[in-house]
Amino acid sequence: MSEHPEVTVAPVQAFEPPYYVAVFTTVSSEEQDGYAETSARMQELVQEVPGFLGMDHAGTPGGLSVTAAYFRDADALTEWRGNAEHREAQKRGRAEWYQSYTLHIAKVERSHAFTRAEATLAPEAG
Amino acid sequence: MSEHPEVTVAPVQAFEPPYYVAVFTTVSSEEQDGYAETSARMQELVQEVPGFLGMDHAGTPGGLSVTAAYFRDADALTEWRGNAEHREAQKRGRAEWYQSYTLHIAKVERSHAFTRAEATLAPEAG
Repeated sequence: MSEHPEVTVAPVQAFEPPYYVAVFTTVSSEEQDGYAETSARMQELVQEVPGFLGMDHAGTPGGLSVTAAYFRDADALTEWRGNAEHREAQKRGRAEWYQSYTLHIAKVERSHAFTRAEATLAPEAG
Repeated sequence: MSEHPEVTVAPVQAFEPPYYVAVFTTVSSEEQDGYAETSARMQELVQEVPGFLGMDHAGTPGGLSVTAAYFRDADALTEWRGNAEHREAQKRGRAEWYQSYTLHIAKVERSHAFTRAEATLAPEAG
């Protein structure tokens, strides 16, 4: 069911606008019991939301973490927001794991992606 | 002129919508000469753009970096996009520093922030 692929180091691609991005920035508190498990579970759970497109995530050693999660439309976001297990996790986040956070919900108007052409080993013809 | 405050570990706050967020996700290449200096310079330069609101940034050891930069309106974004020094840096980024990247430009429709109340040392009255 929720097989998920190996995490590879690649940014989520650009999709055809409009779509939504939820930018979630957090600073962790000193209380992290259970955080890693719940975070992994949320990453699994969100993939079951119809219209979930992908997620980019990175954290600094100082405890600031930046997550951008992409959704096809507002309905997908609404479903994720209302998910009971997700709400429970949010509650614990506020009570225990986060010193502070900000959530920005935004509609993507344009996007583009770049991938470097592989360097070829062959010299240019000439 | 462009004094900037100590970097503190705190997420950028929630602003009054609408505003814009540029989500820029990158995977670095193996060629990083000059990257740190240019990145620092861009972080300084963007602060001079009227309507720039702030930036959250984090990177993984694997080379994935997630940046969310906030702007008051589309004009602020247009100004930043057209900045000559920024364009030059983008060009170098594609030629040298990035394996791949994605840019999502999105209009924030709602946002909220949470900050944990400081734990007090005093016991509850009663």
